[in-house]
Amino acid sequence: MAYELHYWPGIQGRGEFVRLALETAGASYVDVARGNAKDGAGLPAMFRYLEGGDVRRPPFACPFLVDGKKVIAQTAAILLYLGPKLKLVPAGEADRLWVHQIQLTLADLVVEAHDTHHPIAGGLYYEDQKAESLRRAGDFRRERLPKFLAWCEAVLERNPGNAARAVPRMVGSRLTYADLSLFQVVEGLLYAFPRATKRMLRKAPLVAALHAGVPGNKRLAAYLASERRIPFNEQGIFRRYPELDG
Amino acid sequence: MAYELHYWPGIQGRGEFVRLALETAGASYVDVARGNAKDGAGLPAMFRYLEGGDVRRPPFACPFLVDGKKVIAQTAAILLYLGPKLKLVPAGEADRLWVHQIQLTLADLVVEAHDTHHPIAGGLYYEDQKAESLRRAGDFRRERLPKFLAWCEAVLERNPGNAARAVPRMVGSRLTYADLSLFQVVEGLLYAFPRATKRMLRKAPLVAALHAGVPGNKRLAAYLASERRIPFNEQGIFRRYPELDG
Repeated sequence: MAYELHYWPGIQGRGEFVRLALETAGASYVDVARGNAKDGAGLPAMFRYLEGGDVRRPPFACPFLVDGKKVIAQTAAILLYLGPKLKLVPAGEADRLWVHQIQLTLADLVVEAHDTHHPIAGGLYYEDQKAESLRRAGDFRRERLPKFLAWCEAVLERNPGNAARAVPRMVGSRLTYADLSLFQVVEGLLYAFPRATKRMLRKAPLVAALHAGVPGNKRLAAYLASERRIPFNEQGIFRRYPELDG
Repeated sequence: MAYELHYWPGIQGRGEFVRLALETAGASYVDVARGNAKDGAGLPAMFRYLEGGDVRRPPFACPFLVDGKKVIAQTAAILLYLGPKLKLVPAGEADRLWVHQIQLTLADLVVEAHDTHHPIAGGLYYEDQKAESLRRAGDFRRERLPKFLAWCEAVLERNPGNAARAVPRMVGSRLTYADLSLFQVVEGLLYAFPRATKRMLRKAPLVAALHAGVPGNKRLAAYLASERRIPFNEQGIFRRYPELDG
């Protein structure tokens, strides 16, 4: 049976980390909320899980994955679950936990990237918190982003699996969802903060090489060129507000 | 060999979620950064992992756990690793993933609670972002905290393991680290936002019952009464700034 992914239909957002894994593995899945309500899909199908009183293990928020009777929320938990099934993690438990730890750290970066344009409240417009956004984005560019990218670079430098590889991997020598997620984060950063990110990638050559090389995967490349890949926009996590790019 | 926990020595913070699990299980562990630098412990021992160029799988931040040669960071990943060893999770994979999903959702709440007093930058003082904190804390009290607590209440209501229990559990009928973590979050909220939290707990009676009942565990109660339990203070995640309590 196909996996069901439930996520906001108009943005990449957190759902995209799950989409990249499913697409790269060639897994069969339905992007439910992008379907039609007349066919039992669309946003009503998603809200049935989020608001239905009969869901035994309710998601706090989307994205969530439905696999038969299982309902799994939290992006990192979804990838922890899917990783072995999609063959996007190594075999050993310690390696899998390390891939997961990387995902959790990237998730922290994603929260901070989001909060550059919503430092006060997710329910308010950017325009209602623009002064605060300018302050927070400055700190993000100066302090936080360099720290996160330096850590990713160190992870790549210290991965012995990269000794003989042109395109480095985060863990071992085969593609994992940690590689896909770092690719996606860099994509988002280049969209939202093109000047700051390009400058910083010069100091993180392995991160840049991973970002450039990951779309060498044919299924991923086909997905990125398809209509299934929603373009970045100003409703998502990564938004292009030039004033926040310094 | 005893587990090594590495975390800031003066606050409960994120390290406390790991401490509660270790203490409740009666596990042997060393709280390394609270030890003496002369004995090879203290902050220098922690920074050796955070800044040492020879750590193959470097933590991005503390807390992290050292278990023999394994170095594991990210609070939720540490608990995912420790859960089975400390017998603080059920036996089945699906149940364990659900406990982890709850932990990740509580971790999101912890970030938002922290950002009520640091909405602009973790590296700045509260006093340098007080106006922004007042706005963010208002949104947290009005929108976010009720949503998180209602979700926790729904999780408790829908857990069939609670049918015959006076003290409810988040998952199944035996104590898991999700219960310890929800206890700790409520402790923190009652410290930081006593008025708002007490008011909201009236609408979340199962959350209140869990919070009141979890310290019925003797080892946990002994820990909470010991000097090892660092009191809440204004350097941690949960801080008592009365103006942020509305």
